[in-house]
Amino acid sequence: MTQLEMARQGIISKEMEYVAAKEKVSPEFIRQGVAEGTIVILKNKNRKDSNPVAIGKGLRTKVNASVGTSPDSTSLELELEKLQVAEKAGADTIMDLSTGGDINGIRKEILAKTKLPVGSVPIYQTAIEAIAKYGSIVEMKAEDIFATIEAHAADGIDFMAIHCALNFDVVNRLKKQGRTMDIVSRGGAFLTGWMLHNQAENPLYTQFDRLLEIAKKYDVVLSIGDAIRPGCIDDSLDRAQVQGLIIAGELVDRAREYGVQVMIEGPGHVPVHHIHSTIQLQKELSNQAPYFVLGTLVTDIAPGYDHITSAIGGALASAAGADFICYVTPAEHLRLPTAADVREGVIAARIAAHAGDLAKGVKGAAEWDLAMARARKSLNWEEQMVVAIDRERAEKIRSERAPLNSSDDVCTMCGDYCAMKVVSQYLGVPAGEC
Amino acid sequence: MTQLEMARQGIISKEMEYVAAKEKVSPEFIRQGVAEGTIVILKNKNRKDSNPVAIGKGLRTKVNASVGTSPDSTSLELELEKLQVAEKAGADTIMDLSTGGDINGIRKEILAKTKLPVGSVPIYQTAIEAIAKYGSIVEMKAEDIFATIEAHAADGIDFMAIHCALNFDVVNRLKKQGRTMDIVSRGGAFLTGWMLHNQAENPLYTQFDRLLEIAKKYDVVLSIGDAIRPGCIDDSLDRAQVQGLIIAGELVDRAREYGVQVMIEGPGHVPVHHIHSTIQLQKELSNQAPYFVLGTLVTDIAPGYDHITSAIGGALASAAGADFICYVTPAEHLRLPTAADVREGVIAARIAAHAGDLAKGVKGAAEWDLAMARARKSLNWEEQMVVAIDRERAEKIRSERAPLNSSDDVCTMCGDYCAMKVVSQYLGVPAGEC
Repeated sequence: MTQLEMARQGIISKEMEYVAAKEKVSPEFIRQGVAEGTIVILKNKNRKDSNPVAIGKGLRTKVNASVGTSPDSTSLELELEKLQVAEKAGADTIMDLSTGGDINGIRKEILAKTKLPVGSVPIYQTAIEAIAKYGSIVEMKAEDIFATIEAHAADGIDFMAIHCALNFDVVNRLKKQGRTMDIVSRGGAFLTGWMLHNQAENPLYTQFDRLLEIAKKYDVVLSIGDAIRPGCIDDSLDRAQVQGLIIAGELVDRAREYGVQVMIEGPGHVPVHHIHSTIQLQKELSNQAPYFVLGTLVTDIAPGYDHITSAIGGALASAAGADFICYVTPAEHLRLPTAADVREGVIAARIAAHAGDLAKGVKGAAEWDLAMARARKSLNWEEQMVVAIDRERAEKIRSERAPLNSSDDVCTMCGDYCAMKVVSQYLGVPAGEC
Repeated sequence: MTQLEMARQGIISKEMEYVAAKEKVSPEFIRQGVAEGTIVILKNKNRKDSNPVAIGKGLRTKVNASVGTSPDSTSLELELEKLQVAEKAGADTIMDLSTGGDINGIRKEILAKTKLPVGSVPIYQTAIEAIAKYGSIVEMKAEDIFATIEAHAADGIDFMAIHCALNFDVVNRLKKQGRTMDIVSRGGAFLTGWMLHNQAENPLYTQFDRLLEIAKKYDVVLSIGDAIRPGCIDDSLDRAQVQGLIIAGELVDRAREYGVQVMIEGPGHVPVHHIHSTIQLQKELSNQAPYFVLGTLVTDIAPGYDHITSAIGGALASAAGADFICYVTPAEHLRLPTAADVREGVIAARIAAHAGDLAKGVKGAAEWDLAMARARKSLNWEEQMVVAIDRERAEKIRSERAPLNSSDDVCTMCGDYCAMKVVSQYLGVPAGEC
């Protein structure tokens, strides 16, 4: 049975117990969320020795870090280094998006080297193998697509981005709409190309039951890929995007009915004033399926800083109800990220997720900030470093310029004119004792 | 006459014409905003050869970069370097917050070296000189406070943070409320200490007319300092803060009546779900005075990344109506910023301001993003670099890893599996021609 089937039968699985303890909620809270489909648990039945992670309503917002080779960078070592860096920086899940080198070998290695849930986008591999086998992506067969999906599932992949909510309703609406950037989803682009060339409907849509069968067998969480997501501010909330969300919502119903855990992937590029509506729309159209947002970048103008544009959008999305956010690194739109980029990306996304958690009132979120405020008020630098989201970075910056003329308990910004210090003398709350 | 007095008399000054051209609005739009007090123009009458900047409703959100020495770092050269870096990175204004070394000399040098409007916080200097003169901040005299303000104004300072909205109504409410971090404003801390020690009302409040007289004489824009701003998430929107805003609103009325341009300074640390209310409250309580926010940091837990926590809050604040945001650097809460920190801080704040401008529909904002989207769609890398907010950074990142096995027109993230490239073949919009 899948976690969803167990939850519906009132069974509290050991995975539910594990994630409940992690989230500091009751196992029953988890069971109920899973039964309703507002929570999913990432844990492939074939995956041994990994730690399940729950995503959804009432839980801490999770952060995904994507790693993987590209045609221009096929080193397994580098990707394993990124995996390690992402994990150390606090990523909750890893996605392997490899498109270069020994794709099967890399996936198996990543699954072996981490206890975090691992996701993938099987269509990448199918498309690349189609080029090798048939000379072109548009020649790939439905059989190839499902064979790759099953292979990933059998290897233990815990969640998969599958672009099943893309059909001719969506593609035709896109053509009629006229977009600035058309399609920026790679999976969406491969499949749209295939559909238009073959004048045939997307097999992932027409043979959705086949997909559900595989997902159920391994309890893979289906992540409905946002094939039609806006790739720039100008395309946000257009008719093609919303048509895609409607189709995705219908597929969520079918997946749940079949006993398959499911979430929906979202944009992308979304201006600040569209984020609340974007999240609300997805939640309403899908009966509150967990939302995995891939950005949301609030402006297009800042290549080199998309960890920041996406942290802005990610915080807002998380506050508005998004459950899972994908990190974006400073290398986005420019090149494949390095290990250092991965670190920046994970921390920025965690800041965004946490800012959203404060707004949503997630359990334990406010306490973290309170601990820092108290450490600051008491000028307890050791404690500030312990509480910091990135102790290493905070210590490095402070140590670069220690107070020379001032006391040890202040910093070089204000020296002994520190407001904390001045006020403590007059408001009766001595610094160091509050 | 001040800009406000001229605007009320229907006069369009050369400063109004200048800023109108910069903002791509009509001079009459500026005149009307200045007359109503929803727009201020930063331009001290004594300041020769500087470029005025307008701040307020309907205009691009501006970014301030603060520089200045501290007791532990008194180098004029370093602060002038920061000034240059801030200006090159696109700061709209500079604040000189010097508290170490030759404070008067540094201010004059900064005013001489930039054409940007320059702001200051005169109480810092008064307090520091009081220590030298009398042995303690609490011994400073009202005369000292007003003398420093007049000296700064005579030097050409265009806007001043003055903590005049701090009185015993506010301090007593603070004591009664019980805050986690009490007062984090340095000016607020100095004055609260003074008030409690001397058991006397804040002279900047009781002698507000004297302040108005100086501001009017030089047409200095009064920036009502947020003495009582929340210094941590836990203190946001408490009764002390709101009491301060009420007093500030009353002083705005008096300043406008007197013909003095005025804006209000705001927090600080504000969680995502408080930002809209915080901005709306300030706007309503002050009859729409321009709002200069000093953060807004959406979480306390990320020292080393407060350029990001404040970019999240700054974008939201700007979208909600804030008109002017102060940069925050990665060094915030840890040490005095370096020139490199200044650069990071300015760019992050500009991203936030622009994200807010997109949401507010500021003229020209959407066109910038559209230019980038078109350059991306057509795989025109040269144009992407030209349009980027930080060309230098974008070029550096891209060049670190150029495509090896793929064509020149893609990047190493996807190589020739670039969605833009794939789609262009099938949707009839060839890449490079859209």
